[in-house]
Amino acid sequence: MKHIDLRSDTVTWPTPEMRTAMAAAEVGDDVYGDDPVTVELEKYAASLAGKEAALFVPSGTFGNQLALFTHCPRGSEAILDEDCHIVQHEAGGAAVIAGVQLRAIACGGESLKAAEVQKRIRVGDDIHEPKTSLICIENAHSNGKAMKMEELQDLRRCADRFHIPVHMDGARLFNAASALGVQAREITQYADSVMFCLSKGLCAPAGSILAGSRKFIEEARRKRKIMGGGMRQTGILAAAGLVALKEMRTRLDEDHENARRLAELLAKIPGIMIAGDRLQINMVFFRHEKADSYDGEAFVEHMKERNILINPAGPDGSYRFVTHYWIKREHLQIIADAVKDFYTQD
Amino acid sequence: MKHIDLRSDTVTWPTPEMRTAMAAAEVGDDVYGDDPVTVELEKYAASLAGKEAALFVPSGTFGNQLALFTHCPRGSEAILDEDCHIVQHEAGGAAVIAGVQLRAIACGGESLKAAEVQKRIRVGDDIHEPKTSLICIENAHSNGKAMKMEELQDLRRCADRFHIPVHMDGARLFNAASALGVQAREITQYADSVMFCLSKGLCAPAGSILAGSRKFIEEARRKRKIMGGGMRQTGILAAAGLVALKEMRTRLDEDHENARRLAELLAKIPGIMIAGDRLQINMVFFRHEKADSYDGEAFVEHMKERNILINPAGPDGSYRFVTHYWIKREHLQIIADAVKDFYTQD
Amino acid sequence: MKHIDLRSDTVTWPTPEMRTAMAAAEVGDDVYGDDPVTVELEKYAASLAGKEAALFVPSGTFGNQLALFTHCPRGSEAILDEDCHIVQHEAGGAAVIAGVQLRAIACGGESLKAAEVQKRIRVGDDIHEPKTSLICIENAHSNGKAMKMEELQDLRRCADRFHIPVHMDGARLFNAASALGVQAREITQYADSVMFCLSKGLCAPAGSILAGSRKFIEEARRKRKIMGGGMRQTGILAAAGLVALKEMRTRLDEDHENARRLAELLAKIPGIMIAGDRLQINMVFFRHEKADSYDGEAFVEHMKERNILINPAGPDGSYRFVTHYWIKREHLQIIADAVKDFYTQD
Amino acid sequence: MKHIDLRSDTVTWPTPEMRTAMAAAEVGDDVYGDDPVTVELEKYAASLAGKEAALFVPSGTFGNQLALFTHCPRGSEAILDEDCHIVQHEAGGAAVIAGVQLRAIACGGESLKAAEVQKRIRVGDDIHEPKTSLICIENAHSNGKAMKMEELQDLRRCADRFHIPVHMDGARLFNAASALGVQAREITQYADSVMFCLSKGLCAPAGSILAGSRKFIEEARRKRKIMGGGMRQTGILAAAGLVALKEMRTRLDEDHENARRLAELLAKIPGIMIAGDRLQINMVFFRHEKADSYDGEAFVEHMKERNILINPAGPDGSYRFVTHYWIKREHLQIIADAVKDFYTQD
Repeated sequence: MKHIDLRSDTVTWPTPEMRTAMAAAEVGDDVYGDDPVTVELEKYAASLAGKEAALFVPSGTFGNQLALFTHCPRGSEAILDEDCHIVQHEAGGAAVIAGVQLRAIACGGESLKAAEVQKRIRVGDDIHEPKTSLICIENAHSNGKAMKMEELQDLRRCADRFHIPVHMDGARLFNAASALGVQAREITQYADSVMFCLSKGLCAPAGSILAGSRKFIEEARRKRKIMGGGMRQTGILAAAGLVALKEMRTRLDEDHENARRLAELLAKIPGIMIAGDRLQINMVFFRHEKADSYDGEAFVEHMKERNILINPAGPDGSYRFVTHYWIKREHLQIIADAVKDFYTQD
Repeated sequence: MKHIDLRSDTVTWPTPEMRTAMAAAEVGDDVYGDDPVTVELEKYAASLAGKEAALFVPSGTFGNQLALFTHCPRGSEAILDEDCHIVQHEAGGAAVIAGVQLRAIACGGESLKAAEVQKRIRVGDDIHEPKTSLICIENAHSNGKAMKMEELQDLRRCADRFHIPVHMDGARLFNAASALGVQAREITQYADSVMFCLSKGLCAPAGSILAGSRKFIEEARRKRKIMGGGMRQTGILAAAGLVALKEMRTRLDEDHENARRLAELLAKIPGIMIAGDRLQINMVFFRHEKADSYDGEAFVEHMKERNILINPAGPDGSYRFVTHYWIKREHLQIIADAVKDFYTQD
Repeated sequence: MKHIDLRSDTVTWPTPEMRTAMAAAEVGDDVYGDDPVTVELEKYAASLAGKEAALFVPSGTFGNQLALFTHCPRGSEAILDEDCHIVQHEAGGAAVIAGVQLRAIACGGESLKAAEVQKRIRVGDDIHEPKTSLICIENAHSNGKAMKMEELQDLRRCADRFHIPVHMDGARLFNAASALGVQAREITQYADSVMFCLSKGLCAPAGSILAGSRKFIEEARRKRKIMGGGMRQTGILAAAGLVALKEMRTRLDEDHENARRLAELLAKIPGIMIAGDRLQINMVFFRHEKADSYDGEAFVEHMKERNILINPAGPDGSYRFVTHYWIKREHLQIIADAVKDFYTQD
Repeated sequence: MKHIDLRSDTVTWPTPEMRTAMAAAEVGDDVYGDDPVTVELEKYAASLAGKEAALFVPSGTFGNQLALFTHCPRGSEAILDEDCHIVQHEAGGAAVIAGVQLRAIACGGESLKAAEVQKRIRVGDDIHEPKTSLICIENAHSNGKAMKMEELQDLRRCADRFHIPVHMDGARLFNAASALGVQAREITQYADSVMFCLSKGLCAPAGSILAGSRKFIEEARRKRKIMGGGMRQTGILAAAGLVALKEMRTRLDEDHENARRLAELLAKIPGIMIAGDRLQINMVFFRHEKADSYDGEAFVEHMKERNILINPAGPDGSYRFVTHYWIKREHLQIIADAVKDFYTQD
């Protein structure tokens, strides 16, 4: 163990079981459809999502962009939350690959609301207007929240009224399922397509899944090729992915529990305020009430000296600590002590 | 005169002077740079905008899209007002032609504010993030407002701080100048490039201008060709454009005056409320206080029977009447009477 | 008359009849479908091409690119002649606007042959391969040739066998019709869509037509908007276009006759060789047998001094002189004399 | 060993050494630059190619498309061989991702010749013309040939004369090096960028390398993100890649030797003709002189019954058998016997 790495759950290493599975995986050329483990993974992943079919893709961004590329005619418009990954962290790909106009809604940390979406839907014949071709939601959101089932239902109803498909960025789908206490497929039933990551909390080294109807996935398979995502002996990564989905998926509760415990410990530090409403999955958001009085870079450095890696503060001075498989119960006090040391030194 | 057409100022016919000028225009092949009137128009237009160079383009949408295409590297992001023409009425072109991601800000009918823009600017090295490559403003805005000079200055300062260019959609630039009581170039000094229309209030049959630095226009000329906007004997349209810029530009005050008079007449009708803050150019926005009690389609039909063309109500039940060269002082009472008839009939 | 301009037929000025028609044209906002002359032009143009519908576009390049954009799914492939306008002179637009891969065939000055096309058609399910979505032909070709009816039939049969549409770049469609002695619609019956120019030999100042099925044109109308080609009072240009189609279309024989006469005169000059197989429309291709011994720039300059504008030689030292409405019978000897002077001086 | 798989070298499984390396690989989040094995692989790969920097990408197609995206301004043109992978087998991606126009040259099985390239280079200021932004070569070519060093030099000289970069699709770069008896970097010195695969003959399960100048790779890293190719713990695949480059690269001679031996055995079968000029790397091309008399599908089926997988014949009835690490010396006679059985049965 080199570091206590709280920067993200994207930093997770594969588990020993994954390493064993990867070393032993029977493989073939997936472009020929010959890779048995990839075929198995795609089938299993589809069943978890309650969809007809699924496709292995190199990354979460790839899966989201492929979904846009497959759902959205070029020159159409996708409605989504301004803070979502597609707007914030996918390098502007939507206008390059899919050629789709993003219609971002400022949600102020709340979930995307059906009423706000509906106001922006455009399905008429006015040739001045791009047609709305997709609604995107992110669940769980990287702001720490899982969407409520009623919110999902509302969005679905709104989408249905206008015959618009819904894509779910479920990079942390199973965290959402865990937080909501439901099966993943109860969540994904409200989406026409869903992307979820095998990495992040599930610890596979790389790879994500795009799931949807058979027709959708068939088209996505062709477009994956255009994007250069057709890989060869993907069975190696798929083997880890299967472990991720079978073994790791059901233990995310632990990470959430650790996040809550860590929040409790941090909350005891004078001046530290926890964003309680965002404490739903494996993320703890907090800030010091006098954030401006402290040197953010010094805090990052201070933690690093204690072998703890964290990301810089957001614009409002708040930090996000992310728990995951490699953050163990015994690390929590060490982390909290390190934070305390910084804020109580003089 | 066939109709009193209040739908937009895009419906304006060319004036007799324009028809004469078009009939007599000396022309050449503009793709060879041989069209003298186009060359003259571009030079004159550049001087009005206070820019080094200008380019004739087939439409306002073409000019805006060409500006995006020329300013913005593919995969970058442009920040703009959600209600602006580029987001609302350009058919999703930004993601098709320029390949640029739109970052729209809901402004609620107010001007785009520098503070809101600044929050969204991204110029760092994080490869997850598209880089902000442009700020777009629309002035005058099709919501009836001209941006205040201080607002323009604030945006310019914000843009300069991050070395980001500003494009102005000045489809109604000269309406803004008239409303603000300044020369157009005082407004456009805050933008790196500006598009303005020769049609609309200026009455030329078709064509717009994109103006900017010599280098920018040189690049835009090449990209105009990619978009299929290189035309041949444009001198015909340019001749009308020159009349538009020389004769019609300075009479827009009349249209604004007529709009205010029309507003006054409408305001006398019981129940009619004028959006006074949006009464800055040649547009009157109004709604009946019991808009829901009236049949919008019937109103459009009622007006049409009186030879008056209007657009359907917006989502909130408000109407926009647009004055222009072909709406004369003597029409105003006729219009007001027709409106009154509808709302006071029983 | 300023010059004898042989550079191209794109340099043609509008005729007096066109100027009168433009000055008098009744106009409206074509984006609202209110421009009566444009509506009339589109209807008449469709009938000439034997198609259900037609659309006015700003230029020939615009029309071709719009056809690609409308026919071809992004990521598909269009097969065409390497020397055609789309490959040579449309600024690489196909990969920008339509996102279509061009599969160019080197035809060595001959027409695109069905056998060569067929070898390149890809319609299978192999996801490595782009699907062939279009075959493009240019007729008459800017190399001076009209395609033979049998060649057109062969290509059509080939296209039908694989259910692939055919687009015809008919920038000089009526020159082809004249050269072949048939009606335009006999030629265009072999194409699903056709673009033809109102300018060039027909002398309208600007504008082209894209014609095809009602469904195709409906979709193209929407995509024209994306490309910024929705113009306002297009009736001005349409009025000239109607004159072009009604009056000028049927007199192209004269230009062809003049080209042949000019060729005869040039052929008498010692050393001058006429490309006889390319003498089918309004273009004369010739080179001096000792082309390398002469200074091409000096030749262009020599002609210019005699008030005759010509383009520089092609890579093989050959020149193209283009006849058109503004090149009259009496100019031909003047031209030939000027050429003779250059090549026989010492 | 399930099959003798001659369809391609893309079907190769990882070696036991690779599996061990993957199981043991130290990993980190490569998007944070934390994955040590990926960093090592990129450094080593760059040194092999004689370039400043290198980047791991998910596939060969991804690497080629990323090279186009990074080298070529949208709307420019890339010149390449019509039979190359980018034209034939990359799903039309060039027009989607890079927005670049392909200018394919029919080479008839020969290498791309500098003279043919030069004729198509366009670097002037004519705005009708896309500018040539790249020359692509494929080496070794999937037609079985390695380009001669003189051909490479000629192309380089041609490119330099016009200041155009050269990209090499070196999916089988080390096969070319082996065939030519030179170091890879002696070949890649003639290219500004090169993509080579870790899979195929080198047996890594997936992944390719794009190498070039530091500036080029920096830009490519950003664009890799746009294309969704930023993966997380790539160390797993990189570990196999390092084995591929260190252990497997130098044994490709064996595959070539086996190809030659297989060709000799096949040549003994009456009627079988070997394409001797294409017998340069690990591919044997052959056809029966009476190919039309035999049922191609039956041949594929016949081989399959003998546990030998082959691809269907090309359009001319010729077959390609590909040797690789998992085709051992002892398989060659078995393969030849199976072929003989088919063609000599009656």
